[in-house]
Amino acid sequence: MTFTLNLAIIGPGLVGSEFISQIAAYQARNAATRFSVVAIANSRRQILSSKVSLSNWKTDLEGSNAQSADLSKLIDHAAAHSPCVVVDCTSNETVASSYPAWLDRGLHIVTPNKKAFSGSLSLWEDLQKKSAGKSKVFHESTVGAGLPILSTLKDLVDSGDEIVKIEGIFSGTLSYIFNNFSSTDPSAAPQRFSDTVTVAKNQGYTEPDPRDDLNGMDVARKVVILGRVAGIPLDLSTLPVENIVPSELRSIPTSEEFMAKLPEFDDHFTQLNESAKKEGAVLRLVGVVDPKGGSSVKLVKYAGSHPFASLKGSDNIIAFTTKRFPNPLIIQGAGAGAAVTAFGMFSDVLKIASQVGYASL
Amino acid sequence: MTFTLNLAIIGPGLVGSEFISQIAAYQARNAATRFSVVAIANSRRQILSSKVSLSNWKTDLEGSNAQSADLSKLIDHAAAHSPCVVVDCTSNETVASSYPAWLDRGLHIVTPNKKAFSGSLSLWEDLQKKSAGKSKVFHESTVGAGLPILSTLKDLVDSGDEIVKIEGIFSGTLSYIFNNFSSTDPSAAPQRFSDTVTVAKNQGYTEPDPRDDLNGMDVARKVVILGRVAGIPLDLSTLPVENIVPSELRSIPTSEEFMAKLPEFDDHFTQLNESAKKEGAVLRLVGVVDPKGGSSVKLVKYAGSHPFASLKGSDNIIAFTTKRFPNPLIIQGAGAGAAVTAFGMFSDVLKIASQVGYASL
Ligand SMILES: NC(=O)c1ccc[n+]([C@@H]2O[C@H](COP(=O)([O-])OP(=O)(O)OC[C@H]3O[C@@H](n4cnc5c(N)ncnc54)[C@H](OP(=O)(O)O)[C@@H]3O)[C@@H](O)[C@H]2O)c1
Ligand SMILES: NC(=O)c1ccc[n+]([C@@H]2O[C@H](COP(=O)([O-])OP(=O)(O)OC[C@H]3O[C@@H](n4cnc5c(N)ncnc54)[C@H](OP(=O)(O)O)[C@@H]3O)[C@@H](O)[C@H]2O)c1
Repeated sequence: MTFTLNLAIIGPGLVGSEFISQIAAYQARNAATRFSVVAIANSRRQILSSKVSLSNWKTDLEGSNAQSADLSKLIDHAAAHSPCVVVDCTSNETVASSYPAWLDRGLHIVTPNKKAFSGSLSLWEDLQKKSAGKSKVFHESTVGAGLPILSTLKDLVDSGDEIVKIEGIFSGTLSYIFNNFSSTDPSAAPQRFSDTVTVAKNQGYTEPDPRDDLNGMDVARKVVILGRVAGIPLDLSTLPVENIVPSELRSIPTSEEFMAKLPEFDDHFTQLNESAKKEGAVLRLVGVVDPKGGSSVKLVKYAGSHPFASLKGSDNIIAFTTKRFPNPLIIQGAGAGAAVTAFGMFSDVLKIASQVGYASL
Repeated sequence: MTFTLNLAIIGPGLVGSEFISQIAAYQARNAATRFSVVAIANSRRQILSSKVSLSNWKTDLEGSNAQSADLSKLIDHAAAHSPCVVVDCTSNETVASSYPAWLDRGLHIVTPNKKAFSGSLSLWEDLQKKSAGKSKVFHESTVGAGLPILSTLKDLVDSGDEIVKIEGIFSGTLSYIFNNFSSTDPSAAPQRFSDTVTVAKNQGYTEPDPRDDLNGMDVARKVVILGRVAGIPLDLSTLPVENIVPSELRSIPTSEEFMAKLPEFDDHFTQLNESAKKEGAVLRLVGVVDPKGGSSVKLVKYAGSHPFASLKGSDNIIAFTTKRFPNPLIIQGAGAGAAVTAFGMFSDVLKIASQVGYASL
């Protein structure tokens, strides 16, 4: 019994191309569920077909079989190829705002794009209501990339567990920076904060302007998503977020000037670090979901024996403390990178395939 | 759009009763999916009904509406109430050997019973083949109770990731014993192994005869299950398992005599522990799945900074090292206890509900 699920892919960038490679590799191995890519679009061009070639799509997208990008044509095409999952691999807000309309057309959605789930509460509620029907939305990769975080949280909530606290390190960049700057290793040489940020930037761990990481807004979006999945209607505009960019440096226009001035604030960060060290603790920038109202993004001291203290590299970690797990359920591992992000999306697509496939049996 | 999934529950012991409580609590909260319990059976009695009362089932099971236990009658009743999930909460091997026949009758299966999945390879293969159709088998709670271990492994494998190694502490009992006996805490007083086992036994952490934990067979069953889900056809009879019960004590008839003699072997365990300590390491009894042929259950030394070294209480932990997660994906938390075991089963039931429910939309 084979069954085909169609996929329309928007945004074949870093993550999107890797997702396409994973689909191609899957096709070579599996028989029961078949995936057929029926559309690929970037911001300029698109290919619509009944079966896009997964080996030549890059040249095809620039060639004469492609057309100018036109999202509404793409959606018409996808809807004509039901069952179909629209895989949004952009970080675009306008694209995200169309999800409810796509669900109305009978399309499923899988995406690593945080915008729809951390934006207006009414969009979130609309998506919840609409995806209770036949059209499904999954967004595992919006928090912790491929780590099974949202699916686990959803199972905890749906099975009636009571969330006491969710706490975690949700930014690979901030994980890397603080794991190095504030290490449990007694033999590690003390670092200047500006040096740690420079290394992170040079290794490609940060956004082009590191303030886009240090301001905590990416973590805040993830806290909002986790909170909402846990049933707490958090909002980005009211969530307390500790912006660790010194206030004097926030309005400096360029990233270069910011990096040049950051060393002037090294003493401030060294003092914070030393005060943690005196207590045998380390600094970590964490997101917290607290049903009692303390949800926030903040710099916190953790004892050296705490699982957050011994985190390595740019790994993410999350601890769910619940009524059933008073000693928390912890998940950790790579929370960024194309391979693991695409894996999270693949898990979501497999969930839709299992539901749609079951109905076709 | 409401939809009802029927449940037939075999073995309302510790885990089974908690599962029934979780179903009852869910009914009080939710509308979209309804669960209806149509059968409850222990080894002596059973109730078959179109709707068993979830508040009075214990007295009903002993009362005049109940009948003598008869598994084949129960299965007929369940099959007449399709869609129905048979929830096997026993640890019985004969019950487990009937799963293929139940699948043939169109029934779904959810269970924390390890027997069918760690027993003969032909039974495993039969279940795999049969559950590719409309009838589904889920057994998340057979490894790590409610921790999302098997679902994560299945997603990794299905999405084409390559398993390099799976390593973990899968026994709450052995976790508790070694976390206490071999601690990273330098201020912890040295313990005698026999004392640690006695405390664990007195606190109810061990089987009535602690040798049933120390012989590694429970861990071995979990390694076999993990290996098979990873696509490696492991077999209990050929898996190398380190039995840490001193050979002189294996054939002693009673648990009491065993406990009385164990102190004679304290020096042996102290030496092992001291040799680990000299390297800054601790001892942990782990299960390993290794696609290259090194799958086993063994006592291993871990550096103090390793996540396995800082495990607390009776928690389980698992590390998946894969091509996409060279720095492993780690999941940890309570891996035993009725509440979390029933939670794992509940997650499985929700998966079946999402598939069957989708088809009914
Ligand atoms: N990278 C990670 O580790 C990671 C982890 C978790 C989540 N994510 C999320 O994954 C998504 C993709 O990240 P990425 O790193 O792959 O980004 P990327 O490399 O910049 O790719 C973005 C893609 O989206 C396309 N695009 C942008 N606007 C579009 C529009 N209006 N219509 C159609 N296509 C549009 C771009 O096409 P053009 O080339 O035409 O501009 C490009 O193909 C983002 O939402 C990100 O937050 C990424
Ligand atoms: N407890 C945990 O933390 C945990 C964790 C993971 C997995 N598990 C697994 O969960 C399962 C249940 O564990 P438990 O602790 O709940 O065991 P339990 O308290 O001993 O309960 C076993 C139940 O099974 C019934 N039973 C036994 N043989 C039967 C048969 N042939 N037909 C019908 N009913 C039968 C017993 O009924 P009677 O009263 O009539 O004997 C009892 O109701 C086991 O497979 C265990 O390995 C447990």
